Amino acid sequence: MPARIFLDNAATTPLDPTVLAAMTEVMADTYGNPSSIHAEGRKARSLIEAARKTVANALNCSIGEVFFTSGGTEANNMALKNAVRDLGVTRIISSPLEHHCVLHSLDAIQATGAATVEQVRIDALGHVDLEDLAQRLNSDDDRKTLVSLMHANNEIGNLLPLEEVAILCADAGALFHCDTVQTMGYYPLDLAATRVNFLSGSAHKFYGPKGVGFVYIRNENIIKPYLDGGAQERNMRGGTENIYGIVGLATALERALLEQDDRMVKMHDLKRYFVDQLRQRVPDVRFNGDTERSHAKVLSVSFPESPKGDLLLMNLDLNGISASGGSACSSGIDVGSHVVGHLHPESLRHTIRFSFSHHNTREEVDEVVRKLGGML
Amino acid sequence: MPARIFLDNAATTPLDPTVLAAMTEVMADTYGNPSSIHAEGRKARSLIEAARKTVANALNCSIGEVFFTSGGTEANNMALKNAVRDLGVTRIISSPLEHHCVLHSLDAIQATGAATVEQVRIDALGHVDLEDLAQRLNSDDDRKTLVSLMHANNEIGNLLPLEEVAILCADAGALFHCDTVQTMGYYPLDLAATRVNFLSGSAHKFYGPKGVGFVYIRNENIIKPYLDGGAQERNMRGGTENIYGIVGLATALERALLEQDDRMVKMHDLKRYFVDQLRQRVPDVRFNGDTERSHAKVLSVSFPESPKGDLLLMNLDLNGISASGGSACSSGIDVGSHVVGHLHPESLRHTIRFSFSHHNTREEVDEVVRKLGGML
Repeated sequence: MPARIFLDNAATTPLDPTVLAAMTEVMADTYGNPSSIHAEGRKARSLIEAARKTVANALNCSIGEVFFTSGGTEANNMALKNAVRDLGVTRIISSPLEHHCVLHSLDAIQATGAATVEQVRIDALGHVDLEDLAQRLNSDDDRKTLVSLMHANNEIGNLLPLEEVAILCADAGALFHCDTVQTMGYYPLDLAATRVNFLSGSAHKFYGPKGVGFVYIRNENIIKPYLDGGAQERNMRGGTENIYGIVGLATALERALLEQDDRMVKMHDLKRYFVDQLRQRVPDVRFNGDTERSHAKVLSVSFPESPKGDLLLMNLDLNGISASGGSACSSGIDVGSHVVGHLHPESLRHTIRFSFSHHNTREEVDEVVRKLGGML
Repeated sequence: MPARIFLDNAATTPLDPTVLAAMTEVMADTYGNPSSIHAEGRKARSLIEAARKTVANALNCSIGEVFFTSGGTEANNMALKNAVRDLGVTRIISSPLEHHCVLHSLDAIQATGAATVEQVRIDALGHVDLEDLAQRLNSDDDRKTLVSLMHANNEIGNLLPLEEVAILCADAGALFHCDTVQTMGYYPLDLAATRVNFLSGSAHKFYGPKGVGFVYIRNENIIKPYLDGGAQERNMRGGTENIYGIVGLATALERALLEQDDRMVKMHDLKRYFVDQLRQRVPDVRFNGDTERSHAKVLSVSFPESPKGDLLLMNLDLNGISASGGSACSSGIDVGSHVVGHLHPESLRHTIRFSFSHHNTREEVDEVVRKLGGML
C-alpha cells in the first residue's frame, strides 16, 4: 500500500519521535503520584515542574501562571467560565468564527445569565474588524469586559494581530482571552511584552500527545478551579496529573521552538506552492479567508459547485489523501462549517481544508493536485 | 540501592506491562484525530469505541452510558455539577468522608445556591449510618435529591453496601452518584442489577495510565457537557480524545477483571498478615475505620502518640518505604486527614495509610514491620 498523504495537520499531528521516547521512558520508570511526598512522588513532581518551567520559558511568563489541563478545550472552558464566575466579567466580546469550545462555552455562560456575549464584526476576508472592536471597547458600557478572540482560525487560518488586540484591551481595561491552540509552537509569543490575560495550548497540535494542554492565567487574575478536587496545580486544578502527557507536551513544545523557523519556512513554501498549483490547474478555484495574513499550516480551498463536490473529501480519502471539511471536532456532524458559512452564507461551493506539516513535501502537493483533477 | 517497598497503591499504581505495551503501540502507530472522517481518524475512532465496549462489558451497561474523561476528578465534577444544573437536583445528601473532588464540588455547588448539601451520619467505625440515610430519603422533603457516597473510602478503606444504598435511593426516587474510583477493577459491579445513576473510574488506580478516566451516566439521565466544545463523546464531552490513555484504561480494566480474584486474595492476605504482625509487634497499635468491611488494598494504621510520630512518614521514606499520611491529593498540604480527623477529632495519634498491590509480598510486610519498630 503506498504511503498516505496527511494534509490534516490542523486537526492533529503525529507524535514527534523525541516526544514518544520521552513519554515511554516516563511511563516505564515513573509511577509515583506527584502529590505524594515520598521518593516516587517527588520524582513525578520534579518532572511536572520541569515541564512547567519549559512552558513558562517558551511564553516568557512565570511558572506560577501555567496550569496543565486535559487539553485546549478544558483550558478555554476554564478561562472563560471562571473569568465570569470569579472576576466579575459580565460582558464578553467574541466572534462568530471561534472554535466550538469557545462558542459553546459562551452559550453555556449566556444560559446562566451571568454575562452577555456580543460578536465583533468580521470583514469580507474573515478578519476581525479592529475598528469595530475598538468602538465596542470604548463605548460607554462600563461593565467588566472580556474579549475572547482566537489567534489563528482553525478552519481558514486567518491570524489575529494579537499585539494590537492586547493593547486595545489593556487600554480599555478589558481582559483578553486568546485561544492560541493553533499557533502555540508555531508563532513566537512573549507574554512579558504582550498583555494577554488567558491563553490556551494543546499538545497534539504541535506534535505532542493528545489529552493534555495548558492554560496560561496572568498572575493578577486570581480565579478558582474549574475542576474541583485535590491540591494539584497549586490548588487550581484537581486531578492526578497526566505526567507522561505533561512531559510529552513540554518535550514537543521545546522542539517546536527549536525548529520553529525551519518548520515555518517549509510550511509557508508548501502553502504558496499549493496555492500556485491549484490556481494553474483548477478552474475557478478560490480560497476562504486571507491566504496571506494567515497561519502557514492552514489553507481552506473553495472548489466550484459540482455534482461530485459532495464526495470530494471521501474521494480524497479513498485516494490516500487525508484532509478535512472544516474543524475535526465537528466533522462527524453533517453540517457545514460555521466559519465558511459565516463568510459565504449563500455559497454552494465545496470547501476542503488542507493543513500542512514540516513533514509534507512538494511532491505530495503535486500528487494531490494531480488527483484532484479527476475528482472535480 | 535496594528496591523500595511501595505501599501507597491507593494513591496510584504502576502501569501494568501489558498496558504500557498497548499504549506505546498506539502512540507510535495511531495519530489520527478520532473526529476526522478519513482513514487515520477512523482508525483512532475504532480504538476508542473498542475501549468503550470493554468498559461497558465490565460494568454490564450499554456503551452509550460510558464517557471518557481526564480522570476521576473530572468524572465526579461532571456528574455532581451537571446533575444539579441539568436534572433539577436541589438537595444533595453526602458524607464528610468523601474525596476532596466530591467535597469541593459540593462546596462549589452550594456557593451557587443551586442546591443544599446535607451530611449523612457516620458511625464510630466510619460507616455510613444507613438508617439515618433512609430517614433523610424518606422525610417529607420533596425536593429532587441526589445521594453522593463513595464505594470505598480512599483513606480508611471502608466499603459502602452499594446495592443497599442503590435500593434505598431508587425506592425514594433519589439519584445515586457513587465515587467508585478506589474500587473500579477491584470489586465486581453489575449495573444491570444495581441501580446507580452516576459512577466514576480513574485508570491509574487500577494499573492504567494517569490523566484518563470515565464517568458512567445512566441512559435515562440526560445531562449536558461539563467541558463544552466539539461533538466528541456523542456531544457530551468536548476535547480531542486521549486515545493512548483510553486504550491504556481499557487494557488495564480488562486485565484487572481477568485477575480480579487472584489479586484480591493476595491483597486480603497481605492486609490480614500486616494487621496480625502489627498487633504482635507494635504496642497499642490501632486501626482507623473497619479493617473487616473495607477495601482489601487499604489499611489505615493508628500509632500511639510519640515525639517521633510526626517524622514517621519521612523516616519510612528514608528507609525505602512509601506510604501516605492520607489522601495523596492533599498530602502536599500540612493539615491532618479530614477523614481520620472526623472519626477521631481529639486524637494526637499518628496515622499512616498503607495500601497494597498484588505486587507486594509478605516479605515486604515483614521488613516494614521490622523497620517500624525502630521508628516509634
